[in-house]
Amino acid sequence: MKISDLILEIKNKDSFLCIGLDTDINKIPKFLLNEEDPIFSFNKSIIDKTNPYCVSYKLNTAFYESLGTSGWVSMKRTIDYINKNFPKIFTIADAKRGDIGNTSKMYAQTFFANMNFDSVTINPYMGSDSVKPFLEFENKTSILLGLTSNSGALDIQLKKTNQDYVFIEMIKSSMNWGNEENMMYVVGATKPQYIEKIRGLIPNHFLLMPGVGAQGGDLNEICKYAINDNIGVLVNSSRSIIYASQEKNFADKAASEAIKLQGKMKIILSQEK
Amino acid sequence: MKISDLILEIKNKDSFLCIGLDTDINKIPKFLLNEEDPIFSFNKSIIDKTNPYCVSYKLNTAFYESLGTSGWVSMKRTIDYINKNFPKIFTIADAKRGDIGNTSKMYAQTFFANMNFDSVTINPYMGSDSVKPFLEFENKTSILLGLTSNSGALDIQLKKTNQDYVFIEMIKSSMNWGNEENMMYVVGATKPQYIEKIRGLIPNHFLLMPGVGAQGGDLNEICKYAINDNIGVLVNSSRSIIYASQEKNFADKAASEAIKLQGKMKIILSQEK
Repeated sequence: MKISDLILEIKNKDSFLCIGLDTDINKIPKFLLNEEDPIFSFNKSIIDKTNPYCVSYKLNTAFYESLGTSGWVSMKRTIDYINKNFPKIFTIADAKRGDIGNTSKMYAQTFFANMNFDSVTINPYMGSDSVKPFLEFENKTSILLGLTSNSGALDIQLKKTNQDYVFIEMIKSSMNWGNEENMMYVVGATKPQYIEKIRGLIPNHFLLMPGVGAQGGDLNEICKYAINDNIGVLVNSSRSIIYASQEKNFADKAASEAIKLQGKMKIILSQEK
Repeated sequence: MKISDLILEIKNKDSFLCIGLDTDINKIPKFLLNEEDPIFSFNKSIIDKTNPYCVSYKLNTAFYESLGTSGWVSMKRTIDYINKNFPKIFTIADAKRGDIGNTSKMYAQTFFANMNFDSVTINPYMGSDSVKPFLEFENKTSILLGLTSNSGALDIQLKKTNQDYVFIEMIKSSMNWGNEENMMYVVGATKPQYIEKIRGLIPNHFLLMPGVGAQGGDLNEICKYAINDNIGVLVNSSRSIIYASQEKNFADKAASEAIKLQGKMKIILSQEK
């Protein structure tokens, strides 16, 4: 998918919501465990009910890998289901991969060619040659870790170099590896104080912002600086939407949570016009 | 496996060789493609012939993932085969994972509990809470990226902070997250000029050194500074061993390459005594 198509979908739906399918076998409603593929059954129900309110689904690969080969089957079934039924939805493999060139090439092959995700998150710590194999795929997006939402971001990303923070130096290094058509950045919604500075460097790139919801980030606060002329933001929420209820109507409850966030986004977008 | 057991095995075999099973379906001998599981058949042959000369096997997860679920089956069969038949061999999942705490916990579960690898490589860019879930597993080793072997290491790791290089600041931050019993560092064999400095900071931790062979690192040069009283080094070679030949006797040829490296290691170890 081209990013221009994502922007159209955001405008059509008045939503820049990404729902994180961090599907944990220990957290889904118990009655689903009798299904042949409980993870896929859960995802399918969530997707069927929430898709009108979001423009993106993000699959956290760790949750699928932890179930071994059956988890990979569930992940593949989920991405195939989205691609077939909701082709305008932007899909993200939240895999945080990155390795030397010949290995990154394999990861890019996995997520872009074999699984057919629109995008994959990448840990850029190993530098340009670890990212470039991903950028060679047409109409696919590489989402680099900019500044992550967790407390550990202090340990390395928020150390100061001679010029600036490590994460700022990372963004400066990387901004010319690709362009705003094939690269985005992850910027944690829990650290709004850095967004203005990040936007100064990369005014046009999309930002994928996790951390609203269970992690405590505030939607209005992050949007103040993050939104640009093309919206330029995807806000991810995972646990607070998908685990809203353990009852039979869990997917309806998830949709209610999604609608709440989409309603707030609609107001924000109307103020931008 | 405890690191003390790895040290015993190094002394028994006069070898600190790690063989990288970066098994690529496009690079294995063509006649194996008729097998039911060509990747496992290749690995089994390589393992059967090379195990007397090495103390560790490193499975690069990207190569298995790129084949989808069948790749995960081949990876699981390979690790099970090593654990069952060669339990003194130290196994490494070269996965370069790392994410926020609840996600890293899933990755740790995958590689330590479900797959039963002895160790996993971790990208520490997201900081302490992204690494700690791995350190909670007993008798398992977390191998953090110290300074990688690729040219992209210049982009972030070799930037200077107010104090020192980013990768040195990373090592300083991380050296107290775990200890020399449950943590190692990846240090590329292609950058020998930094090893003395790294050893000044972490004299006792094991270093996993890729980059000898196809990437051009020199064994004698890196050992000059890297070896400590407990040997403290695993040197990895992948492509130059496992793809030594495309003929029927490919595994014997791989063993010959392994023997060459093990012979050099034996000399180095005898000089250390």
